Amino acid sequence: MGILLTVAYDGTDYCGWQLQDNGISVHHVLNTAIAKVFDCKFSLLGASRTDAGVHALGQQAHLMFETSCVIPPHKLPLVINGRLPQDVRIADARAVADSFHPINDAKSKTYSYKIYNARHRNPLLRRYAAFVPVVLDTDKMAHAARYFVGEHDFAAFCASGSQVRSTVRRIYDINVAKQGEIIEITINGNGFLHNMVRIIAGTLVDVGRGKLAPNDIGDVIASGDRSRAGKTMAPQGLTLMKIFY
Amino acid sequence: MGILLTVAYDGTDYCGWQLQDNGISVHHVLNTAIAKVFDCKFSLLGASRTDAGVHALGQQAHLMFETSCVIPPHKLPLVINGRLPQDVRIADARAVADSFHPINDAKSKTYSYKIYNARHRNPLLRRYAAFVPVVLDTDKMAHAARYFVGEHDFAAFCASGSQVRSTVRRIYDINVAKQGEIIEITINGNGFLHNMVRIIAGTLVDVGRGKLAPNDIGDVIASGDRSRAGKTMAPQGLTLMKIFY
Repeated sequence: MGILLTVAYDGTDYCGWQLQDNGISVHHVLNTAIAKVFDCKFSLLGASRTDAGVHALGQQAHLMFETSCVIPPHKLPLVINGRLPQDVRIADARAVADSFHPINDAKSKTYSYKIYNARHRNPLLRRYAAFVPVVLDTDKMAHAARYFVGEHDFAAFCASGSQVRSTVRRIYDINVAKQGEIIEITINGNGFLHNMVRIIAGTLVDVGRGKLAPNDIGDVIASGDRSRAGKTMAPQGLTLMKIFY
Repeated sequence: MGILLTVAYDGTDYCGWQLQDNGISVHHVLNTAIAKVFDCKFSLLGASRTDAGVHALGQQAHLMFETSCVIPPHKLPLVINGRLPQDVRIADARAVADSFHPINDAKSKTYSYKIYNARHRNPLLRRYAAFVPVVLDTDKMAHAARYFVGEHDFAAFCASGSQVRSTVRRIYDINVAKQGEIIEITINGNGFLHNMVRIIAGTLVDVGRGKLAPNDIGDVIASGDRSRAGKTMAPQGLTLMKIFY
């Protein structure tokens, strides 16, 4: 039986989703909690490899029991949550067809990138937003964001050293909203390269501070040159919001 | 010279504002940071004694240098913030008259109490909102809130064992707003008894879940009986937003 878990986590104290040697991953604590509850063998496959410090409200993880272990999915969140640390929670669980694949079947993903734009840091947002003290022009950022929409080769917006077959991705929607001193960039696309959202956020910050003009974005994308895009923003601003199947 | 500091902090890891023997207080880390920067003697008096785990965006602290140590107030935040842990920040500093008193001169204070109302906990809100899994009727809570407005004897909404001359306080405004799964109670008044906001929040939760009716609130206030009001909600939902002078 396959079960699709919706997982929320505060990534601050983790080395990311993926099992790694140099730190504790969210995958690891989930594995440990599930193993405490169930005797049967299982596998767990996440839909998105979020990086160290990155958060999730809508990570999806595919839980497959290898034996005929029958568990009503709706009971899973409460049972497993009782064994998890406070910064990881299963928000939902539902049965999926045997043919389901959490990565291949994903149609699109939505990420949020939050920036606290004020003179001094806000201690209540330090874990969940990047801090930018320079005044940012959000109208210009919103204008610039539109240039990302569509299918493009995002080589300029990919962490150097990434090994991917293709750097072409399609952005369906991107929105820049300001509420008080918080600027939130919400982006939905069919897939994202390594650090792509954080580099797009860094490039929009360059527009907001006047280092780039909104209509420079097309050229930066076309260049395929990582050095022409903005810096990779800090991980704590990034949250994986939802994966659409 | 007197300087009024606006202080923001994440109260999660502190025993509260006030210096205490059994833990590290926000006052203590501020004292330590200021002493590292300035050689002159000083005193620091906070306007509000926030409890352990309670946050602030607009705490006010009166900094008095005892000698003729002349420091331009606008330079203080950056200088002191560099010596503070990440969960405490000075957001503003301004000179005030010698006659100024941070407690006696306060006209009113605004607190926010946040509740995350959903089936499962949200790891990103665990430090900054109370969790209530029972579905709450926010319309009823908003209706009930109106009964708190005005001058009342709030003895029923005061932590037992408190020693105060009078339990009469005036609430100028109280608002209940729902955004997604977050319910925020915002309350402004001329002063608050110990745990008063957290007990008001607990009483509004009792209304939201149907244990009390909105028009019971008048009776609960009139009773002066702590046992008739709701429970004291968890500290992490509470934030001191602003003090008006």
